[in-house]
This record gives sequence, structure tokens and C-alpha cells, in this order.
Amino acid sequence: MTQPAGFNASCPIPKSDYARILLAHGGGGRLMHQLIEQIIVPAFRNPVLDVRHDSAVLDVGAARLAFTTDSYVVQPLFFPGGDIGSLAVNGTVNDLAMTGATPLYLSASFVLEEGLPVETLQRILASMRRAADAAGVQIVTGDTKVVDRGKGDGIFITTAGVGRIEHALAIAPGSVRPGDAVLLSGDLGRHGMAIMAVREGLDFETTIESDCAPLAKLVADLISGGIEVHCLRDLTRGGLASALIEIAEAARLQVDIREAAVPVGEEVRGACEILGFDPLYVANEGRFVCFAPEADAGRALRILRSHPLGTAASIIGSVTQKSRGLVTLESRIGATRVVDMLSGEQLPRIC
Amino acid sequence: MTQPAGFNASCPIPKSDYARILLAHGGGGRLMHQLIEQIIVPAFRNPVLDVRHDSAVLDVGAARLAFTTDSYVVQPLFFPGGDIGSLAVNGTVNDLAMTGATPLYLSASFVLEEGLPVETLQRILASMRRAADAAGVQIVTGDTKVVDRGKGDGIFITTAGVGRIEHALAIAPGSVRPGDAVLLSGDLGRHGMAIMAVREGLDFETTIESDCAPLAKLVADLISGGIEVHCLRDLTRGGLASALIEIAEAARLQVDIREAAVPVGEEVRGACEILGFDPLYVANEGRFVCFAPEADAGRALRILRSHPLGTAASIIGSVTQKSRGLVTLESRIGATRVVDMLSGEQLPRIC
Repeated sequence: MTQPAGFNASCPIPKSDYARILLAHGGGGRLMHQLIEQIIVPAFRNPVLDVRHDSAVLDVGAARLAFTTDSYVVQPLFFPGGDIGSLAVNGTVNDLAMTGATPLYLSASFVLEEGLPVETLQRILASMRRAADAAGVQIVTGDTKVVDRGKGDGIFITTAGVGRIEHALAIAPGSVRPGDAVLLSGDLGRHGMAIMAVREGLDFETTIESDCAPLAKLVADLISGGIEVHCLRDLTRGGLASALIEIAEAARLQVDIREAAVPVGEEVRGACEILGFDPLYVANEGRFVCFAPEADAGRALRILRSHPLGTAASIIGSVTQKSRGLVTLESRIGATRVVDMLSGEQLPRIC
Repeated sequence: MTQPAGFNASCPIPKSDYARILLAHGGGGRLMHQLIEQIIVPAFRNPVLDVRHDSAVLDVGAARLAFTTDSYVVQPLFFPGGDIGSLAVNGTVNDLAMTGATPLYLSASFVLEEGLPVETLQRILASMRRAADAAGVQIVTGDTKVVDRGKGDGIFITTAGVGRIEHALAIAPGSVRPGDAVLLSGDLGRHGMAIMAVREGLDFETTIESDCAPLAKLVADLISGGIEVHCLRDLTRGGLASALIEIAEAARLQVDIREAAVPVGEEVRGACEILGFDPLYVANEGRFVCFAPEADAGRALRILRSHPLGTAASIIGSVTQKSRGLVTLESRIGATRVVDMLSGEQLPRIC
């Protein structure tokens, strides 16, 4: 279950809002978490689901597996730095990687809208193949459905993934400890702002490219490098802020980060200012946070920075026992504030 | 890849039809197979996918796994005998079962249309839970996306499944041999005609209930009973006719069946006559064919009939070398004809 944690019982959804699904229920904020925690998880409750990870961790015979799924409904289908196909591969690869698994096999299921140009489908399939090759996974099974014109939106893709877990770490919010360092693998906000720029027809001086990329190699390098990884989370819907709040709430600890340590590119910062977005909440598709003991932090940072996808990695904060579930941000001018989860979404249909 | 086999190179799709996706591309007939074989499979080509099974069979560490996925877009969402939720569970359980696997874990990913009543979602989730419990599987991971009103159709569900394979059989079209008996697990056409009756607002004397059901126990009983199972296929889109044609073409053998041996309920037969459908092509969600050596056929039939879901099981035909890929039907009056695959679909959005 991607982003399943973080339901706050003190913030009930008004009955009137909750009789029907809202766009905001898909946005990565508080409403989405309430939908998952109040409606979906209770229906399926079981011990594996209750762990609330990006992927389920399963023992099948002698093998320890990670298993995950995501649907992709992004609009537009093509954007600078990627498309719905590369996103559908990398997103699921990354959910597997966040358990420390080696991603192996993907399924791909398509809901096509009548009238979709076959050439569009072919471009997307070719992109999926390239992304799968780059991530070292095979697409081994799939399905195709067609819905009437006006009952879909070109193409929706659902991928599921299976990976093998060979490490002995317990990578989960429950393993986060006071004193842990919080590492961020790179600069924020490029996926969300790339989508937004295309969607709004905005012409920035330079095109912002999505950060969409497979993260499994970075994670494998951390683990093989002997880093005692406590928790990993990729920063998709809801961005860095939502991911940290989910982990802080699940771990019942406080996460303190420093704004000056969080890398945000000039173009993304400019676009966010023009459009009124906060980069902390903007979706990424090639960035993650890593919680590890302070003693490992320097070495973990060097490992991340040695990888092309981690050159801008940074130690952005640390974990304390000061509260049970808060995230704080120390601004560039030294003021400290609590980072809240948004109630709905900044950007619908971002992934 | 559900129903990936069966592309016939002698029947190219006209270019003009093929520039855009048609509803018929989702219908289980020749057009769907051409889409899969000409466009999708070539994009992803790899040894696992090339086996063309209902599920991929994977070796992960010491474990042999089955892995499959399907998207469900059925309309209406609720129908006699089931709903999109029970269908999404049983369909994926059955694709796993068709490799002889024990279904273990499912993922569930939802594409919700803005405005969907939450009560509708809750009914569907409860149905999924009941179906999962009945099939002995756990829903362990998932995802939720929301699309704008008018860009979806209430709810689409994609399930993926992982099962464990513990037998040593090679259950696949390539294992079918001349002399094999063809067994059918029950009566045909109830799922398709149940959907059709609701969709068209038809009032038949008695309500036809979908046959939607989990088939893994039936398959497990065949295998544990020592039946040398050569091939299994559940009879979803395209019905019995399409499944047999796919297997005959993949095995390069001929399948001869007798109409009198194929059980079709009176109500389904009547509804098919009124609406102009042929039960051989109507979708089922709780029926499968089994290819096994003639010597095992009687025992296999007894095993199937001892199960509540197999009481109407029948030996419907046999395999010969008379041609490479034909299916023939001997009618009740003794005439024999070739069974063709439909080019498009009888029933769109049946699953």
C-alpha cells in the first residue's frame, strides 16, 4: 500500500464531504490517508497489510519477497523527462526498492480508452521497455481492457512488481530511532513541476525535466555498503513533507529538518513561486529519504553522492523524542515551524 | 498475459482500423489477440512472457512462483451472482490456478472516478474481502488513484496475484498431446448472460446468476489426485471457443468437441437465443477446460464432479493430429463444422 500510514483520528472528514469520492482523495494528503485508513485497509485487514510499507513483504517457501502495485493516471501522458510508461515502471521499481528488495519482475495492465491512437500506445510501450531494461526488470505478464470513449482518459496503466529481499534489515518506520540522521537523495520537485509546466502551458526559460528514475541501485549500494538502513521512503504524491509526517507518525518520534539543507533547483524554486506551490509538498519520482544511525550518515552520504542519481544528496535533519509524530522545519532565517500534511492535493493526477 | 496466444498471421488488421483502439480490441476475439501479439508482446519480449500463459511462472530463489494481473472494467458494477470486486479477486485467483499454483497473495489497485459514492466503494471492498477469504488469499498491498469526473467510469480495479507452484507438471498448451481428453468443469455462459440481462434491462423468467467463483480448489484436487494435467485454461473473454482455438493453435493440434457434451443451462440457452449469442463464445468466470491423457479422463471427471463447482463437469472432446490449430464442433444432429474465433467481441466490458 503506497502511503498508507498517517491517519490522524483527531481530524475526521465531514460526513457531507465523505459521501462521494473527491479528486482530493487521490492527492497524497490527509484526505487520501483517511480514505485508505478508514475505508480500504479495514476492509482487507491482515498482518501483512498492517505493516504499512510501500511494498508487502512476503515469505513464499524459502524466498523472502517484496510485492507491490500502483496505478498510473498521469496527465499529460508525455512530459519532459518521462511519460506514463516510464513512470509506471519506475514507480513500481521504486516501491520495491524501498524495502531494500532487488526488483525482478513486473506485470503491466492497461485500461485503454476507445479511440486512443495505436501510435501513442506504441510510444508508451517502448518507453516501458526502455525503463524496464534500465532498471533491470522484466515485464512478464499483463492484461488489456478497452473502455468506451468518454469512460477513460486515453490510457491508465497498473503495474505490479515482485522483488527478492536478501538483506536481514528491518526497513520500516518502526525501525526509526532517536538520533537517526535523515538523508535526502537529491533535489526536490522536478517531477511535479515538469507536469505542471506542461499542463498549464507555461513557458519557463528552461524546461524542467521530471526526476523520474529507478532508485534500486542506490538502495542496493547503501545496503551492500553496510549502512544500517532503518527506513526508506520515495517522495511521490505529497512530496517530502507528507513522507516525513507519515514516518514520524508511524514511528511516534519527531523529525527535525533544516530548510537550508534541502536542495531545490533554481528553476523549480522559480516555478513554485510563480504558481504558489511549496517544493516540500511537490511530487518526485526519483527521490527518496533514508533514515540511518548518525554514525553511518557520512558514509551513506558519500555512497549516495557517488551515484549519478544521488549527486545532490544531503543530510537534511535528524530524529528526536521531543514529540510523537511531529515534523519541524528550521527556516533559512532560523525560525522553526511545524510541517503539516495538506488536507487535499496540490496537483491532481501527477502520477 | 491473459489470452496472449493465437495470433494468425494470415489475417492482418486493415491499416485504417488499426490506427486507433476500438472497443473490439478488448473483446477477447481476433482483434484483441492481434493487439497483444503485434503491439504489446513485441514491445516487452522476454523468455517468461513468450510462454504465453494465464500467469507468468517465475523462479525466485528456491521458490517457484506464479504471477499474474488483470484489470476489471465490468459494467454494471453489480450483477446477479457477483460484482466488480468478487470478479477482480476470482479472476486473478483463477489465472494463478490455471498454472496449478496455490494462490496466496493479491494486490488491489483502484482508479476511482470523482463522485463515486463511498458507500459503493465500501460494498465492493466488502465483496473483495469475502471473495479473498473464500479463495484463501490475502490482499496485502494496493493503491488508489482518483480521476476527474467524466475521465473514468465509477471504479476500475486491477488485481495482481502471487501463488506458489509445488507440482512438477508442465501445465501449458505445449504439453497437450494427441489423444488427450478435453474436460469442461461446468455449464457455459452464465457470467456473460447475467451481465447482459442486467445491462439490457431484460426480465427473464428467472434471474441468471454469474458463475463467478474461485477455481483453485478444483485444480488442486486434480493435481493431488494424480491427474497428469497437460493444460488448463479458464473461459473468460471469448468463452470456450476462443480458449480452445488459442490452445489448438499454440499446440499445433486439432481439438474436436461434441455439442451434446457441452452443458448449457436452459435459461442461458434461452437468453442466448433471444439476444443472438452463441454460448460457446460467452464469457464465464468460474469455468475452465482441462487437457489430460485419455487414461486419466474418467478419474478427472469424478474429481471435478465431487466438487460443488464441478457438478456439471463433462468430457467434451479430444485432441488429434488431423490439423495444426483447428477446433471442430460436432453438432447435435451429427454435422461437423470448424469453430472460428470472433473478430471482435460479443460483449464489451464483461470483465
